[in-house]
Amino acid sequence: MNKILITNDDGFESPGIAALCRAFSKVGEVALVAPLSEMSGSSHSITAWQSLRVKEVEVAGIKGYAVAGTPADTVILGLNLLHEREIDLVVSGVNRGPNLGFDVFYSGTVAAAMEASMSGIPSLAVSLALGESSNYSLAAEMALEVWEKFEDFLRVQRNLVLNINVPDVESKDAIKGWQITDLGDRFYFTRVRETRHESGWREFVFEEERRETEVQKSSDYWAVWNKKVSITPLCPNLTDYLVKNKLEEIAGLVYERE
Amino acid sequence: MNKILITNDDGFESPGIAALCRAFSKVGEVALVAPLSEMSGSSHSITAWQSLRVKEVEVAGIKGYAVAGTPADTVILGLNLLHEREIDLVVSGVNRGPNLGFDVFYSGTVAAAMEASMSGIPSLAVSLALGESSNYSLAAEMALEVWEKFEDFLRVQRNLVLNINVPDVESKDAIKGWQITDLGDRFYFTRVRETRHESGWREFVFEEERRETEVQKSSDYWAVWNKKVSITPLCPNLTDYLVKNKLEEIAGLVYERE
Repeated sequence: MNKILITNDDGFESPGIAALCRAFSKVGEVALVAPLSEMSGSSHSITAWQSLRVKEVEVAGIKGYAVAGTPADTVILGLNLLHEREIDLVVSGVNRGPNLGFDVFYSGTVAAAMEASMSGIPSLAVSLALGESSNYSLAAEMALEVWEKFEDFLRVQRNLVLNINVPDVESKDAIKGWQITDLGDRFYFTRVRETRHESGWREFVFEEERRETEVQKSSDYWAVWNKKVSITPLCPNLTDYLVKNKLEEIAGLVYERE
Repeated sequence: MNKILITNDDGFESPGIAALCRAFSKVGEVALVAPLSEMSGSSHSITAWQSLRVKEVEVAGIKGYAVAGTPADTVILGLNLLHEREIDLVVSGVNRGPNLGFDVFYSGTVAAAMEASMSGIPSLAVSLALGESSNYSLAAEMALEVWEKFEDFLRVQRNLVLNINVPDVESKDAIKGWQITDLGDRFYFTRVRETRHESGWREFVFEEERRETEVQKSSDYWAVWNKKVSITPLCPNLTDYLVKNKLEEIAGLVYERE
């Protein structure tokens, strides 16, 4: 029997997490540990220096904990309270809105999944992209399909997140298959606009401005825009090994000259 | 003339950022855009949905902005206010304490540098590791040496952060060289301890527990523990390309069976 931990960054009362609870209950024993309130954009913050308040709750018939903390906090707490070594899978989501490209760094949904992967537990980050159907059930169903397809591989692979973005469409028929993708490069600049200027202080807001760039067909952006389920394998090891070799070469040359 | 943007996550009044301002003033025109107060552990959060208050300040003779926001916010704002395309380098730090291994995900210092790299601006994240000398000047000096050694390469490399951890020692003589490293795997578990239990609520704190694991000689942990300056090249593209190929293979097999 699978033991599955479910979390998100929209808070334990969001429709996305209820959809995941219902879907994954079919294949395992599900537990929920999610933030008390919306923590979108919290990225990978953790609550290192103060205590975390936790409340027992129930979502879609599933017992769990609501945590006054960040998504990464909930995973650390969940793996401990539910006995880390026995958890087979952590699923984070379903996020309201996509988590694509480098923007995954801002995402609490992805951070929660990443936190699990750092502890060697396979994880899925699930996001509902574009559209206005709010079809969280479909996203949860697609995530379950991904788990079932790749379960054997995920179990033996240390430090892996599958970042899943599901197009928000009325029904499964409208989805044009799925694609294993890479994270797309940025296609926008963040601009700032000044909103107020008073003595000693200025105020700014961020605005996105489209950048002239080609969206690669291998990227998560391309898949989702073409109504495919995008699955991007992410690894918490940010080391750029090609550059590492290059730096060692350069360093060698510099040393020789000295 | 280099144009260099300096930020951190400890706030504009911290000793680490003043040390960076002094060191990098020698090689370029320096501007400072840093958080108003300490934002350690803020990770890669951004302030997407509200306005950012900004105050003009001066640090070590350098004019700049203090921002009521996160480290990533300061970089977005700084690149805009100071004309992105003209910035040659972003330097973030000097952080009080190391940023090593997967823990870089929690770090505001690294997040600020990563934000720059996402916009194609070379960046350095600089942290002072271990020890009790609080030798921020030495860390800043070492960071400047790194920039000078690798400047030509950094200028042509898109999306690169050099994560620099400097051992905290009395003087440069005590440093045993430097090493190009990779991010080490976790050598601890985060455990939780229950501190209080009241009606409807429980309270927990996080504690680190050492894990039995071998520290790789190629890792940032090993370098710093051996009093070397650790330089790890980091890339914001989290895609695991080896796994991507593997998933495509598995998917192919699954499809054939269906």
